[in-house]
Amino acid sequence: MGYLINNITVLTWNNGTKIIENANVKVIGSKIAYIGTENQESSGLEIIDGKGKVLMPGLVNCHTHIPMSLLRSYADDMALHTWLYEHIFVVEAKLTAEDVYWGSQLALLEMVAGGTTCFADMYYFIDKIAEATAESGMRGLLSRGLINGAVLEDYSEDDRLNEAISVFRDWNGAFDGRIRIALAPHAVYTCSPQYIRAIRNTAEKLNAYIHVHVDETVKEHNDCLQQYGKTPVKHLYDTGLFDLPSIAAHCVHVTDKDMDLMKEKNVTFVHNPGSNLKLASGIAPVPDALEKGLNVALGTDGASSNNNLNMWEEINLASLIHKGARLDPLTVNAGESFRMATANGAKALGFSETGKIEEGFCADMIIIDAQKPHYFPKHNLISNIAYAAQASDVETVFVDGKILYHKGEYKTLDKEKILYNVEKTCNRLFQ
Amino acid sequence: MGYLINNITVLTWNNGTKIIENANVKVIGSKIAYIGTENQESSGLEIIDGKGKVLMPGLVNCHTHIPMSLLRSYADDMALHTWLYEHIFVVEAKLTAEDVYWGSQLALLEMVAGGTTCFADMYYFIDKIAEATAESGMRGLLSRGLINGAVLEDYSEDDRLNEAISVFRDWNGAFDGRIRIALAPHAVYTCSPQYIRAIRNTAEKLNAYIHVHVDETVKEHNDCLQQYGKTPVKHLYDTGLFDLPSIAAHCVHVTDKDMDLMKEKNVTFVHNPGSNLKLASGIAPVPDALEKGLNVALGTDGASSNNNLNMWEEINLASLIHKGARLDPLTVNAGESFRMATANGAKALGFSETGKIEEGFCADMIIIDAQKPHYFPKHNLISNIAYAAQASDVETVFVDGKILYHKGEYKTLDKEKILYNVEKTCNRLFQ
Repeated sequence: MGYLINNITVLTWNNGTKIIENANVKVIGSKIAYIGTENQESSGLEIIDGKGKVLMPGLVNCHTHIPMSLLRSYADDMALHTWLYEHIFVVEAKLTAEDVYWGSQLALLEMVAGGTTCFADMYYFIDKIAEATAESGMRGLLSRGLINGAVLEDYSEDDRLNEAISVFRDWNGAFDGRIRIALAPHAVYTCSPQYIRAIRNTAEKLNAYIHVHVDETVKEHNDCLQQYGKTPVKHLYDTGLFDLPSIAAHCVHVTDKDMDLMKEKNVTFVHNPGSNLKLASGIAPVPDALEKGLNVALGTDGASSNNNLNMWEEINLASLIHKGARLDPLTVNAGESFRMATANGAKALGFSETGKIEEGFCADMIIIDAQKPHYFPKHNLISNIAYAAQASDVETVFVDGKILYHKGEYKTLDKEKILYNVEKTCNRLFQ
Repeated sequence: MGYLINNITVLTWNNGTKIIENANVKVIGSKIAYIGTENQESSGLEIIDGKGKVLMPGLVNCHTHIPMSLLRSYADDMALHTWLYEHIFVVEAKLTAEDVYWGSQLALLEMVAGGTTCFADMYYFIDKIAEATAESGMRGLLSRGLINGAVLEDYSEDDRLNEAISVFRDWNGAFDGRIRIALAPHAVYTCSPQYIRAIRNTAEKLNAYIHVHVDETVKEHNDCLQQYGKTPVKHLYDTGLFDLPSIAAHCVHVTDKDMDLMKEKNVTFVHNPGSNLKLASGIAPVPDALEKGLNVALGTDGASSNNNLNMWEEINLASLIHKGARLDPLTVNAGESFRMATANGAKALGFSETGKIEEGFCADMIIIDAQKPHYFPKHNLISNIAYAAQASDVETVFVDGKILYHKGEYKTLDKEKILYNVEKTCNRLFQ
C-alpha cells in the first residue's frame, strides 16, 4: 500500500535549497521509496496528480504548549505579569486531564491543517497530550514541564519528576517512534540548580532529550545574573544539562558567549518570533546564531501568546523581522527560514529521517496548492514559500506515509466533535 | 435587489470596537439599509445564512503598486540599491500598458480573495489600472507616480503631469465614485521642490487628493537633511503639499516634530510594516503617531517588496512588531490595528461612507468563516481578528453592494484567463 505522486515540484533542503521539477514521488508504507523523473509502476498505489503543486517536508514546530489553545484570545494586550499571574495561571490551576485532551485536539486540528507534521510540546497531563497526538497521527516530542518554584505549590517536584519518568516509560518510542518523551526543566527561574541536576541525571539514564525555556525576557536574564552571577545559558551549561541533546526555546537575550557555549554543546536555538513580539520579550539574535553555525529551529509557542499555531507566519516573521530590526536586507534569507522550519527542526527533535524529502526518509510531507494568485509569477519558489505562502495553501498532509488531511478533510481527527467539546470545556472553565 | 444576511456577528469600529451578536443586515442597492436584531422582510432579497460567521468592513490597503505583482519573488534577499536599480527599474522600463493591465488583474485576484475592498495605488499606465479596477468591481484611489529626477530620463515631467491630469479628467469619480484619481509626487528624492509645488497647485485646482512616499529610509532622511536642511516631512510641509488631503506612505524615520506637522495638516500616516521589514527600512514610530492622535492606516506596498497583498498579515505585523521592538506589550492593541485597516483607511482615502458597517454606508464588507479551529475558543473576537485570522478565512466580499467573491469563486474576475496572461506576459518580460 502506498502513494504515487506524479508530476510535482519537490522543494527540500540538502546543503541548500533543492528543487526537482516534474518529479514523481513514491511512498511505500511509512517511507519515501522513490524521488525522480522516471515513470513509476503504479499498480497497488493511490495516484495523486501533482501538477501545479509543490511537495515539501512537513513543518516542525519546535516549541508549543498545545493545550493552551483553550486560552487563545483569552488575555491579550496586557502586561506579561498580569497576563501570566492574573489570567493564565488562574485558569491553568483549574484544568483537568480531560480539558487538556480537548485543548490538545483543538491544537492538532489547527496544526495538521496548516502543514505541521511534528512538534515539541511542554505541558502537564502529558499522557493526555500523548493520547491525542497518537490518535491524530502526528509526530511529537512531548514533555512534562518540571518546576520546583513557587507557581504550583500544591504539587511537589518529586511527584512531577516521577510523573515524567512514568510517562516516559509508557510512551517513549510508541507508535513506531512517532511519540517520544523529553524531560523539561521549565526554566532557570522556576527550577533550583539542584532540581535541574536531578532532571539532567534522570534524562541521562533514560537517554531522553531536554526541552527548556531559555532567556526569554530581560527580567529572566537579569534575575539570573543577580541570583547566580551568570547568564541563564551559562547557568544551565554549568549544571551539565546541555551535555544531553537539548532544545532551548526563545533565547531572546542570549549573549555572544552564550551562543558559543550552545554551539559547543549542539544546543538547538528555537526561535519563537511571534510569541516574542506579542509578549514584548524582544527580538532574538538569530542572525548571530546563524553566523555561528548553531542549529536554529522555529516554534509558535502556545496559542495564548501567538495567537495561533501557524508555522507559515513564523517562517515569514523570521525572514522579515531581523532585516527590519538590523536595517540589513541580506540577513535571514528565505532558504534559511525554510530550513529552520523543516530540516533543522527535525534534527533538533531527534527524529532522524524526517524533515527532508529524501529516499528512505519517513514520508512526513505536505502538498501545497501553488496555483493560487499569490504564487504567480513563478520567479522563485523559495521566496514564494517564505514571503507569500499561507497555511491555507496546504492541501495534503502526510505523516509516516499516512494522509492525515486532504483538501479540507481530516482523516484522523473529528473536527465537529472536537469543537463541540472545546466549547463545552470552555463554558465550564470560564463561566 | 439586495441581500439579507441573517444571524451574523457584526464587527465594526465606532469610537471603539463594536460587536453586534445575532444581527440581521440588509443591503439594498449599494447601501447597508438595516443592521439590528429585528427580523426583516426578505422578499426580493437573496438570503445569506450568517451563523458562525462574522461580518466586518472590507479592508482598505492604503499603499500599493498593484502591477508590481508581476515582480513578486523576482528579486528578494538583496540590498535595496541592487534590488531597485539592477532589477526592478530594469524590468519596469520594459513594461507595456498591456503588462500593467495583467499585473493589475493578478493583484486584484489576490486582494479580492483576501477581503480587501478598497486600495490606494501609485504607478504608471494608470488608465489600465483604472480599467482593471473598474472591471473587478473594487474601489480605488489611483495615482500616476510623478518624478522629475534621474530615473526615467526619456519621459519629461510635463508629459507625466499632463498624463495625470488627463487620467483625472477621464476617470475621477467614475463608476458611481468607486474610482478616484489622486496626484502623486513620488518622493522628495525624485521630485524637485518646484515640481512638487506645480503638482500641489494642479491638485488644488482639480480638488484631488495627494499620495506620496515619505521618509522610507535612513538614506532618504539624511539626504533630505543635507540637501534641504530639513526632514522630508518639513520639506513637503513647506511646499504647501500637505494643505491638501494627503496620505504619506511609510513614515519610517519621521521625527516627533514631523508628526506634529502631520497632525496639524491631518496627513494620514500609512504604515507598511511588511515592506519596511523586508526592505530593511526599519520600524515606523506607530505607537507615537497613535499617541499624537494621527490618522494611522495600513498598506502592503507592492508585492515585490512584501511579497503579497495580504492585509491580514499587515494587521498582525502592526499588532506585533511595536510590542517586540519597544518591549511594551500594551502598545498597538488589536482594536487599533483593526481600525487602521478599516475605518482609518477609508477616511484617509476620502471614501466617506465606507470603512464601517453602518446604516446608510456603502456595502463594502466581508464575511469571515469563524468556524475554523483558529477561531476557537471564542473569548475575544477582536483578538482573533488581529492575532489569529487568515486571509483565507474570507468567504464573501461585497463592494458597493455587489458580491465580488463568494466561497472561492470570483464573480467579476476571470482567474484562469488572468493567470494565463500573467504567465504569457512574464515569459516575454523575463525571457
